Amino acid sequence: MKPAWIGLGLFFCTLFLLLASLGLNLFFFINPYLSISATPNWSQGAAKEAEAVAAIACSGHGRAYVDGVLSSDQKTPICECNSCYSGPDCSQFSPHCPLEAQIGDPLYLEPFWEDHAAAAAVVISSWHRMSYDYPDGSYISEQLENRIRQLHTVSKNAIIDGKRIVFGLGSTQLLNAATYALAVKFNSSSPAPAPAPTKVVAASPFYPYYRRQTEFFQNGIFEFAGDVSNASADGDRVIEFVTSPNNPDGSLRGPVLQGKTIHDLAYYWPHYTAIPGPVDEDVMLFTMSKFTGHAGSRFGWAFVRDEDVYATMTNFIELAGMGVPREVQLRALKVIETILQGNDVAELFEHAYAKMSYRWRIVNEVISLSNRFSIQHLPPLYCTYFNRVRDSSPAYVWLKCEREEEVDCEKVLETENIIGRGGVEFNADSHYVRLNLLMRDDDFNIMISRLNQLVYDKKNSAKAKAALNDRIPMVPFTRAGLAAVR
Amino acid sequence: MKPAWIGLGLFFCTLFLLLASLGLNLFFFINPYLSISATPNWSQGAAKEAEAVAAIACSGHGRAYVDGVLSSDQKTPICECNSCYSGPDCSQFSPHCPLEAQIGDPLYLEPFWEDHAAAAAVVISSWHRMSYDYPDGSYISEQLENRIRQLHTVSKNAIIDGKRIVFGLGSTQLLNAATYALAVKFNSSSPAPAPAPTKVVAASPFYPYYRRQTEFFQNGIFEFAGDVSNASADGDRVIEFVTSPNNPDGSLRGPVLQGKTIHDLAYYWPHYTAIPGPVDEDVMLFTMSKFTGHAGSRFGWAFVRDEDVYATMTNFIELAGMGVPREVQLRALKVIETILQGNDVAELFEHAYAKMSYRWRIVNEVISLSNRFSIQHLPPLYCTYFNRVRDSSPAYVWLKCEREEEVDCEKVLETENIIGRGGVEFNADSHYVRLNLLMRDDDFNIMISRLNQLVYDKKNSAKAKAALNDRIPMVPFTRAGLAAVR
Repeated sequence: MKPAWIGLGLFFCTLFLLLASLGLNLFFFINPYLSISATPNWSQGAAKEAEAVAAIACSGHGRAYVDGVLSSDQKTPICECNSCYSGPDCSQFSPHCPLEAQIGDPLYLEPFWEDHAAAAAVVISSWHRMSYDYPDGSYISEQLENRIRQLHTVSKNAIIDGKRIVFGLGSTQLLNAATYALAVKFNSSSPAPAPAPTKVVAASPFYPYYRRQTEFFQNGIFEFAGDVSNASADGDRVIEFVTSPNNPDGSLRGPVLQGKTIHDLAYYWPHYTAIPGPVDEDVMLFTMSKFTGHAGSRFGWAFVRDEDVYATMTNFIELAGMGVPREVQLRALKVIETILQGNDVAELFEHAYAKMSYRWRIVNEVISLSNRFSIQHLPPLYCTYFNRVRDSSPAYVWLKCEREEEVDCEKVLETENIIGRGGVEFNADSHYVRLNLLMRDDDFNIMISRLNQLVYDKKNSAKAKAALNDRIPMVPFTRAGLAAVR
Repeated sequence: MKPAWIGLGLFFCTLFLLLASLGLNLFFFINPYLSISATPNWSQGAAKEAEAVAAIACSGHGRAYVDGVLSSDQKTPICECNSCYSGPDCSQFSPHCPLEAQIGDPLYLEPFWEDHAAAAAVVISSWHRMSYDYPDGSYISEQLENRIRQLHTVSKNAIIDGKRIVFGLGSTQLLNAATYALAVKFNSSSPAPAPAPTKVVAASPFYPYYRRQTEFFQNGIFEFAGDVSNASADGDRVIEFVTSPNNPDGSLRGPVLQGKTIHDLAYYWPHYTAIPGPVDEDVMLFTMSKFTGHAGSRFGWAFVRDEDVYATMTNFIELAGMGVPREVQLRALKVIETILQGNDVAELFEHAYAKMSYRWRIVNEVISLSNRFSIQHLPPLYCTYFNRVRDSSPAYVWLKCEREEEVDCEKVLETENIIGRGGVEFNADSHYVRLNLLMRDDDFNIMISRLNQLVYDKKNSAKAKAALNDRIPMVPFTRAGLAAVR
């Protein structure tokens, strides 16, 4: 009977283990249903879709977006290809395509955000903030305002105490709101009726939108007058746009005139310029577009000292469209919180500075190989954010065709299929062209290769050409490559 | 030996089952890790956060949002309470609080969207559409335009063929853009210089923003002139806002004058009005605010027939802020796709219509119990969308204080802590007040209970009061209650 006992013992032992294991099976099986009841799981479908679309490779030369036009299967969005690439998977390269370098599209920051995908992802519930206003009755998210103030404290680029905040659709909307509010302030603070509309000016070369926007929306109380030299110092009512660092040439600037000023600080961040100190002006405009690269979000903010100007701007923003959409404010919050989570925002600034200063060095090397072109000189400066002297890293090349007969520099660049923005648009000479440096790596590499061709022309010897090819490192801007130059 | 064989047989049998069960356990255990490697999972942190915040109950009288101000733990966002509720969990009711019924905040649609949480959730990647423009160089999502066109075809409320589309920050921005563009068109199509600014008018009572906005942005080419009667028919250049159904009174309207018209169709959807047929006008404005209830998204669209007017409006939108943010267009796409996925958009329209017509019946019953107040008469009409005669379901009560001595009707309502919007703002008599009907259930129940108090005053007998209390069903607007009345 002994083996039978052993057999029976083994059997019960195994049976016990089996039951335990089955119990565990049961737990694993029903667990997902238990967690459904604990969390509603309503976000999972959208999350899965977003990740699936993000995983579409587009050969590394394009992207698919969840809101893209659908491909022929009526399910998957199409690949949207970088300039000069085409085909369903963006794999076809067109060597002679026109390269768009006109617009300051800040797409060089895409890889940074891919690296921070988890921190900066946003999930919006179907019922998120359906109301017209926030709980305090305003169109301003209190939490976002808090984070923005924290951001400036850390970035050391602006003194914000004692100033109210206004949100707008990028700095674009705020430029117009500030112009309007300052003109109203001129009229209301002077006892005599306004003799003429307030003149709106900027020192040349200046951002073309100042003219286009101010002329379009001029309303009898202000009008665009072009260069600062068109406003006299003898008591003209004048509003001056002060852009620092300047678009197009990257120079740090102060006001030229004695009137009211609107400080456009879109580029006043440590990745584009040395920060000699915090700006402390009456009207200071910032935007996410160049700072984080989210130009499509259309999010900007203004710090305003004067209560009347603040009230008029707030009124303007309300009547123009009832504030910045809640989705945008939520995304701005996540993006800025991601930056603040890092080591004192250093990560974004260092990444972007490394990339931009590297590009600037490359462009300098190419241009310096001949006398056909020159570019703006930007000296190294001490930066209070990095606590050291730093090299330049502007957002744009302000290129000049040096030969007198090459009057239309834009056309000269077009011969090599580089589409820049002509100097005339910036109230400057047509010998100048602005070229974007904020583009994707794909585009930047093409631009450099074409600038190479332009710099090497028939007047240079074959020897010079060889030297040039030798000196210009055509490394692709991979993250590994970037790490090497940091 | 027989029992031993049986024991051994049972043992091996059980051992086999145990191994199988263990294998299954192993599968369950490693499965989550396998799926992690298949999808990058960058969205999971944000999804978890959004679901956790959505699960904060706030006693059913408030909501928490992911971008809310943080509570004292510095982690969880605070509860934002409905009117008349307060406390950390919104559980404290203040019976004599002022009830906000001024603004047409469309929060009655929140429960609908909670029911469609999965379909309408939006996940935005950190690198989503950073560029200034869409691939075609515009600020308009092609996929969203496609869906909007599909929506109108199904809703039968507009003829859209042969018309171009413009997106704006709600209809607010589009109203201003259309006014500007039509005034420019007047000036450019007439050989003689403009003798005076184009008059902008509307038939009273009209939406207060028409006046506020047009006066604020008037620029020498247009000016607000108030009621249609202030524009003569003898060749005045005139732009007329035609709001149908009208805000505040819900009446279907056509133009009064012969000039150019801007058709504000914010409420021309089957939940607010019978659709006698599709509108086919030169400039037609729609918005998501009342249609889906997403007022905070600030998304509107215009259909425009004339090419010049379209071009000027597009230019306006560009210079005012470079288009509608990409986050907003993505969310609008998801919301509209959710509606289109249903049984011919019937679900939203039926849900909202049931709720709004029920509220309208309740208000009618309350008001009809005395002669102190009256409200607008809206007859049942045949609706081409529902294919039947339907009862009215307007967005607002246009209430009149009938007693001559009660000149300031707004003040009369304030005695019972109902904050309405006085008739004068609508260019009407102060005997009128507009009350919002689009509010949350909490608010609507409070408003009805207070209207009850006002209707019963000292001139009514105790008997009438009893009859009133008997007749007005004070059921809370639970979804079950709603299903019962459908």
